Amino acid sequence: MEFIKELDGGFSVIENLEVSGAREGKFGVTVIVSRNSTASAVFTSNKVVAASVEYTKNVIKNGIVSAVFVNSGNANCFTGEQGFKDCETLVELVSRDLKIPKDEIAIASTGVIGREMPIDIISKVAYESLSKLGNKPENSLAAAKAIMTTDTFPKECAVEVTLTTGETVKIAGITKGSGMIAPNMGTMLSFIVTDAEISSEDINKALKQAADLSFNMIVVDGDESTNDTCLMMANGQSNVNVVNDGQVDSNFQEALNYLCINLAKKMARDGEGATKFLEANVYGAKDQNDAKLAAKSIISSSLFKSAVFGGDPNWGRIVSAIGYSGCDLNPDIVTIAIADDEDEVDLVRKGEILAFENTPYLERAEKIMQSKNVTVNIDMYLGDGQATAWGCDLTYDYVKINAEYTT
Amino acid sequence: MEFIKELDGGFSVIENLEVSGAREGKFGVTVIVSRNSTASAVFTSNKVVAASVEYTKNVIKNGIVSAVFVNSGNANCFTGEQGFKDCETLVELVSRDLKIPKDEIAIASTGVIGREMPIDIISKVAYESLSKLGNKPENSLAAAKAIMTTDTFPKECAVEVTLTTGETVKIAGITKGSGMIAPNMGTMLSFIVTDAEISSEDINKALKQAADLSFNMIVVDGDESTNDTCLMMANGQSNVNVVNDGQVDSNFQEALNYLCINLAKKMARDGEGATKFLEANVYGAKDQNDAKLAAKSIISSSLFKSAVFGGDPNWGRIVSAIGYSGCDLNPDIVTIAIADDEDEVDLVRKGEILAFENTPYLERAEKIMQSKNVTVNIDMYLGDGQATAWGCDLTYDYVKINAEYTT
Repeated sequence: MEFIKELDGGFSVIENLEVSGAREGKFGVTVIVSRNSTASAVFTSNKVVAASVEYTKNVIKNGIVSAVFVNSGNANCFTGEQGFKDCETLVELVSRDLKIPKDEIAIASTGVIGREMPIDIISKVAYESLSKLGNKPENSLAAAKAIMTTDTFPKECAVEVTLTTGETVKIAGITKGSGMIAPNMGTMLSFIVTDAEISSEDINKALKQAADLSFNMIVVDGDESTNDTCLMMANGQSNVNVVNDGQVDSNFQEALNYLCINLAKKMARDGEGATKFLEANVYGAKDQNDAKLAAKSIISSSLFKSAVFGGDPNWGRIVSAIGYSGCDLNPDIVTIAIADDEDEVDLVRKGEILAFENTPYLERAEKIMQSKNVTVNIDMYLGDGQATAWGCDLTYDYVKINAEYTT
Repeated sequence: MEFIKELDGGFSVIENLEVSGAREGKFGVTVIVSRNSTASAVFTSNKVVAASVEYTKNVIKNGIVSAVFVNSGNANCFTGEQGFKDCETLVELVSRDLKIPKDEIAIASTGVIGREMPIDIISKVAYESLSKLGNKPENSLAAAKAIMTTDTFPKECAVEVTLTTGETVKIAGITKGSGMIAPNMGTMLSFIVTDAEISSEDINKALKQAADLSFNMIVVDGDESTNDTCLMMANGQSNVNVVNDGQVDSNFQEALNYLCINLAKKMARDGEGATKFLEANVYGAKDQNDAKLAAKSIISSSLFKSAVFGGDPNWGRIVSAIGYSGCDLNPDIVTIAIADDEDEVDLVRKGEILAFENTPYLERAEKIMQSKNVTVNIDMYLGDGQATAWGCDLTYDYVKINAEYTT
């Protein structure tokens, strides 16, 4: 899309934004300071939620956030009254240091469930992080690194978008998460800042749409965290309002979707133990909801994920995963293709199997399955529904990471 | 339950029943002959179903089954018109050999999806199997073995039940499946015969209840097969009718539940790559549906299953899995315990965490997690809902089996 330009530098592309990150062992602290920003967030739908999620749900009600405090290493979940006290302690620390009212400070956590916060260590790392606030690319990178847990690489994205009016604004974000998502060490946290002018209500609408197309379409293991948070702030530095007649500018929405999808794909690619990146595109489903069900079911199937790890073009597992997804399907007319960056081959074309043994179809399929990026394309010929989901293969290392991580 | 007595010998405990099994390489054939039996069945809810499932759904409508033909090694799924022709060919073969009308012969298949049946080999193994029909324990064992695919042991169960009237009847069954269930090599097939007198409609009611408490409460990988079939026949040899005033005798129902649970647990224990057997008991849920959601969610969590493999008492993953299951939950009052055959320890008691580091609670929990049989007991204190689910750990070998299996 021509109106979206990807930029380097993460958060550093946004004016009047300061970020930092510091770490001691497994405990990291990221601070994001975007004074007097309108803000909204989407949270985990898990019924067990971290104290920090409850706390931030309250903060966000006012629609104004000036700073976000994030710690990794401890989820502050299932920690009772003490959990809330620890949120208050940390928010007070940030408030005093930055001279920001407490009710404008959001908090997020990721790490082990059911352990009280080691408040001394986290406070110490917090002071260190606060002392490093800045608006350079390296500050953004440090912020993206300090929230990592089992992540193997930091995840940033920044874009400049030309609105339908011709004006430009920027959006930048960081995320962490090794899937959607491990409830213990794999929480998804995303923080996005734009220099656009946009109310908290409109951020909420725009963010929900973007999250549905991105963070809600990646699967590593199907487990959903108690701590998932995606928080977006708008500091208005561009002096460009992106809402006209109550409608979010469509280019802004597209750019936000693009940014969130970019961050989500980075999480799927960094899925715990992953060696391959998976994309499932479903076309021609009865409606969009059916398309989402089918795409997510393919990406979630342990059997298909294992087959991808093994490089086996086992399309029966794809068909079966669509079959139990709950979507409408007519096996007699479905087309199933797999692709990598170089080739695409139909395995089943309008219900007819092509990929028999000793055919060029199967040979090409086997080659594609060896690639680092494997894409499944399904056409159901039932309607206009379309969706894409992302994931990764299921590997020995997924089991190893999650078997050997000790409470 | 005193009115249920487990018997040895599998199908051999039922009079006027002949069974057999034979195998050549990966292709096995099991035949079950129970002439003129009332019958019913429950099938996969996957929208992609095997030709054999479609075929048998038609046969079962008449309510009478005299023989069941089962092949392993090929699922006869996604095989178009040819798949139905192959069903007819095989049913004709059985019909001629046993002099049983074709419309009384059911058929079931398990194996690779999307490959035409190798009808010559299967016919050859079919004749061999038919030549071995008998009513000895070794016939039952051969029948249980011939339907195996990735199963590592044959699965039989037989019971004698004393009805509320004091009369006795018997029920016997075999099953195959390395989970609930791999769509390719892990289909669940169960065949049950009783010598009771019971109409096909009443079999259907009783079987649905039993399947809901057993086969529908086990999870290995969450994938659901295109071929799952549980078929039950009643040959009336006992001359004892188990239905009075339209009600299935409650002891008969309990015994059928017992048998199905026994077979289901054997499947969970034999889950692909499993080293440990898991049971999750949920008490005090808002209602039974909530209890089922919670129990199945625990058993299905890849993270908890990996933790069990690693022997890690990571109860945060249990809490989280309950939290996203969709059931009602108040974390402040929940009790979470784990147990093996020797010990049971509370990790969380009415919302209070006990299993902190360096406590005897955690030490005992770590010991329990080393056991072959790990049980999770949850009390939610919200209502009367109760359910049990069974599963296994997630291991390197699960990935290996499903990565290396070649189409």
